[in-house]
Amino acid sequence: MPALKDSMAQNRLAQAMATHSPLSAKLAEEAGFEALWASGFELSALYGLPDVSLITMTQHLDMVRAIAGASSLPIVADIDTGFGNAVNVVHAVREYERAGVAAVVIEDKTFPKVTSLIAGGRQELVRIEEFQGKIEAACATRRSTDVLVIARIEALIAGQGQDEALKRARAYVEAGADMILVHSKQETPDEIEAFIAAWDGAVPLVLVPTSYPQMTVERMRQTGKVGLAIWGNHAIRAAVTAMQTVFAQIRADGGIHTADGTVVPVTEVFRLQNMAAVKETEKRFLR
Amino acid sequence: MPALKDSMAQNRLAQAMATHSPLSAKLAEEAGFEALWASGFELSALYGLPDVSLITMTQHLDMVRAIAGASSLPIVADIDTGFGNAVNVVHAVREYERAGVAAVVIEDKTFPKVTSLIAGGRQELVRIEEFQGKIEAACATRRSTDVLVIARIEALIAGQGQDEALKRARAYVEAGADMILVHSKQETPDEIEAFIAAWDGAVPLVLVPTSYPQMTVERMRQTGKVGLAIWGNHAIRAAVTAMQTVFAQIRADGGIHTADGTVVPVTEVFRLQNMAAVKETEKRFLR
Amino acid sequence: MPALKDSMAQNRLAQAMATHSPLSAKLAEEAGFEALWASGFELSALYGLPDVSLITMTQHLDMVRAIAGASSLPIVADIDTGFGNAVNVVHAVREYERAGVAAVVIEDKTFPKVTSLIAGGRQELVRIEEFQGKIEAACATRRSTDVLVIARIEALIAGQGQDEALKRARAYVEAGADMILVHSKQETPDEIEAFIAAWDGAVPLVLVPTSYPQMTVERMRQTGKVGLAIWGNHAIRAAVTAMQTVFAQIRADGGIHTADGTVVPVTEVFRLQNMAAVKETEKRFLR
Amino acid sequence: MPALKDSMAQNRLAQAMATHSPLSAKLAEEAGFEALWASGFELSALYGLPDVSLITMTQHLDMVRAIAGASSLPIVADIDTGFGNAVNVVHAVREYERAGVAAVVIEDKTFPKVTSLIAGGRQELVRIEEFQGKIEAACATRRSTDVLVIARIEALIAGQGQDEALKRARAYVEAGADMILVHSKQETPDEIEAFIAAWDGAVPLVLVPTSYPQMTVERMRQTGKVGLAIWGNHAIRAAVTAMQTVFAQIRADGGIHTADGTVVPVTEVFRLQNMAAVKETEKRFLR
Repeated sequence: MPALKDSMAQNRLAQAMATHSPLSAKLAEEAGFEALWASGFELSALYGLPDVSLITMTQHLDMVRAIAGASSLPIVADIDTGFGNAVNVVHAVREYERAGVAAVVIEDKTFPKVTSLIAGGRQELVRIEEFQGKIEAACATRRSTDVLVIARIEALIAGQGQDEALKRARAYVEAGADMILVHSKQETPDEIEAFIAAWDGAVPLVLVPTSYPQMTVERMRQTGKVGLAIWGNHAIRAAVTAMQTVFAQIRADGGIHTADGTVVPVTEVFRLQNMAAVKETEKRFLR
Repeated sequence: MPALKDSMAQNRLAQAMATHSPLSAKLAEEAGFEALWASGFELSALYGLPDVSLITMTQHLDMVRAIAGASSLPIVADIDTGFGNAVNVVHAVREYERAGVAAVVIEDKTFPKVTSLIAGGRQELVRIEEFQGKIEAACATRRSTDVLVIARIEALIAGQGQDEALKRARAYVEAGADMILVHSKQETPDEIEAFIAAWDGAVPLVLVPTSYPQMTVERMRQTGKVGLAIWGNHAIRAAVTAMQTVFAQIRADGGIHTADGTVVPVTEVFRLQNMAAVKETEKRFLR
Repeated sequence: MPALKDSMAQNRLAQAMATHSPLSAKLAEEAGFEALWASGFELSALYGLPDVSLITMTQHLDMVRAIAGASSLPIVADIDTGFGNAVNVVHAVREYERAGVAAVVIEDKTFPKVTSLIAGGRQELVRIEEFQGKIEAACATRRSTDVLVIARIEALIAGQGQDEALKRARAYVEAGADMILVHSKQETPDEIEAFIAAWDGAVPLVLVPTSYPQMTVERMRQTGKVGLAIWGNHAIRAAVTAMQTVFAQIRADGGIHTADGTVVPVTEVFRLQNMAAVKETEKRFLR
Repeated sequence: MPALKDSMAQNRLAQAMATHSPLSAKLAEEAGFEALWASGFELSALYGLPDVSLITMTQHLDMVRAIAGASSLPIVADIDTGFGNAVNVVHAVREYERAGVAAVVIEDKTFPKVTSLIAGGRQELVRIEEFQGKIEAACATRRSTDVLVIARIEALIAGQGQDEALKRARAYVEAGADMILVHSKQETPDEIEAFIAAWDGAVPLVLVPTSYPQMTVERMRQTGKVGLAIWGNHAIRAAVTAMQTVFAQIRADGGIHTADGTVVPVTEVFRLQNMAAVKETEKRFLR
């Protein structure tokens, strides 16, 4: 698996698509994305659960392993708060590295966390020193520095302002973070762009512009400070949209005769499942 | 969970939508379907794997349990060949009943099986007596007869003709099957309609008209012999279609600014995750 | 599954043996114990991990489900702190009830917790009001009041003294707890017996006398206030002891010729696996 | 992880102890064994299930991964028949190699299999050509030839005699097998020693002398043809023996006061769980 750093270097700015399954990972790879965002939000949604630290590390790690087996793209693993304190982080980093990820993203909220973009959500941050301990624990645990440790700052989400966000970003870099993911739920890029303008740290930034879609790849690139853009939840949102539409149509029309033309044929699913390889294996080895 | 039989009795013909996750199950329930088809094909596809007995009973059962926790619809579990012989069937029926399913569908192919609709696929059937033993084992194992045992006949898929299909159907009813699922890959309903016309057994039929979409609910209802229609893989095909489209658009446009309007907003995912219940729980119990 | 309350009523004092697997559960049932303690400590140990909130709810729940499938004894599930806050408790109680447990034990430590009996361990308690919220959340979530909610008090473990322990016990009963588990790491029963003497609450107590083995069943029974005794970790300690001995012997003797007579024969394992049922199933259903 | 071949070369004959958990793996490593046998029989027994292809690849693979995370010994994975045909073998080898095993053992019985040592068990072999296809599939799939493919011959178990066993052994080596495991249920080593004497193949043999314990390491070594001895199920048999004894004692004595001295103290479990590392991590990183 190519290190994420190589990919970022080659592309100046790598784009990671959210994924909740090997299937969505394959589709993201085919679409040309440079990386995968193994999103806790998407996996929670797949399980019909709110993204509030209910999905366990086991469930997420199992899906990450399955994704790693199905795609050759570098995986950026969303490990939320690290599933507890610094001791949990040590355990998590050990396991995610074994699973083959290229990076882990750890956020500075308390466990259990509440999903960032919900209106009026409980957003509590851990103390800076505590989170520095978690970043240091992550860096000390990984076997290879090819596995990036990305610190995710929720200070803007929590309404604590830019000074706090910058202070935390600097402290996390000091603790060893390879990149800083700064998250915002403003509906325009202003807040984030102000942060970027003020950012003088030595490491590149990561953005997840879900709530401020005006922030295009080009606009990020021009800042010269963003290494990775994450499209945070478009795989699951696309899937929901299409299932709602097709289900309603089948129900309304009393059959699949009209809906069929609106979805890919079964043969396209066969292709994605690599049925061709099964036939090849049967031919070579089934006697 | 309401017994599937009640649902079929009330609706004269129940429709089961394919599902591969709690999320797709919730959407199917919201769309008004009466049952869920816990599809091995869809789950295989979700994992990027061909539907040839690679997904394990553990993986399928885990997903079935998660679905049962997220939806109140009766679940028709696709247990393929029963994961081996009659001993495996006993183990499987015990576990699926514990997981809360309303029915299991067991097919008369050899293990490992090959997905039915693939062109030129290896399609091998077990002997009639052997499959009768599996049906009897399933019936003897279930604790409640509310859990239906549905025998799936692959004789038409295997090109063995209607006489063989009818002979098997009768033998399986004799062994205790509550319903007969007869599968066909003809692109028109002719083959299936001939089978239905010839069917004089005491139990209702189940159809999966993936390859002959002209077979509407109304047309099935008019036969008076079909109890359950399964839409076999439209959830995953819809999801694939939408992810391909949205991923391509994001890639082409260099951002999510254009794609965003084509998918449901994040708030719709929050609704499906039941974030409202989290807030309520926090208000009542978080101190 | 018989409700734990029935069992306690019938036996005046029920004994639960620790279990980490269906095998140990079967052995506990055969030995005559009235209940099973699905211990987080034992499962952590089975996985070679410290008991500090690393084992996930998924791993524990999977094992609980497997145990429920293998034994008819009521299962007392050790769910630690409830895996987070009151929102996590709601999720956990829903899932453990679905898995078929007879009771859940929730402890009043902060998440992530540290195992109770370790010398010099970090032992932090949540505020009383916070834990009352968790107990209320558990009681409000269960569908059946046959599933007991047991509040575990760690005040003595944390060195906060008897007044604090009693105050917490009363507050938790007020919040709805069906029983109070009071834990101590004193090497004699004094501390616990003082607590019992002072206990005037309306609900029975649960003891785990790991560190004060002098506390026999008879001695507990004489208090008239103890409903359940948990032997907390003797299954895994027995297993460790025997494996160490037998492994060393095999290694020393350069073969299994001497060790063989010290362990049960393979046929005894066959019996526990119920190979007889496989043969019966093959005879009845394999054709 | 050191390649199994290195270990065998260094020790002239490596001994693998059966394991069913990270805990038993750690104990085997501490006892000095050179390898671990990730036994399907032991894992089935842990789950209270007969060893007849009920435990799924998911369950076994999960345990193998957990073991690989807890021990540095090379793991010899018992993958039974490969979970189906050659297509299943391809899938299995891919996943077990990703999980970090040093070798896979595939046996030439039909799926579902019946455990080898049971009296009067159904023992059916696949055709030689079919099994050669599976071995070739395994060899073609592995990325590294450090992962050994071991062919397990059940011809003696099935009562088909030495000529058949030798014929199969030669055919499997021709197909690419790195080692031959030949299994016998005779209660003396005669049958196996006759096979060894007749063996003129280029690859070393593997023995599992469960039923003929007279076959010591020294006796195997003297043949000059055995590379690996597997002690097939002594971990689980030791555990069963000890749990039965201790459970009975606790039950009989009405408490743990007498049993306590017969098992390791809790502190020994803490040591195996590496609680010392938790304290170290807390000291370094918890702020």
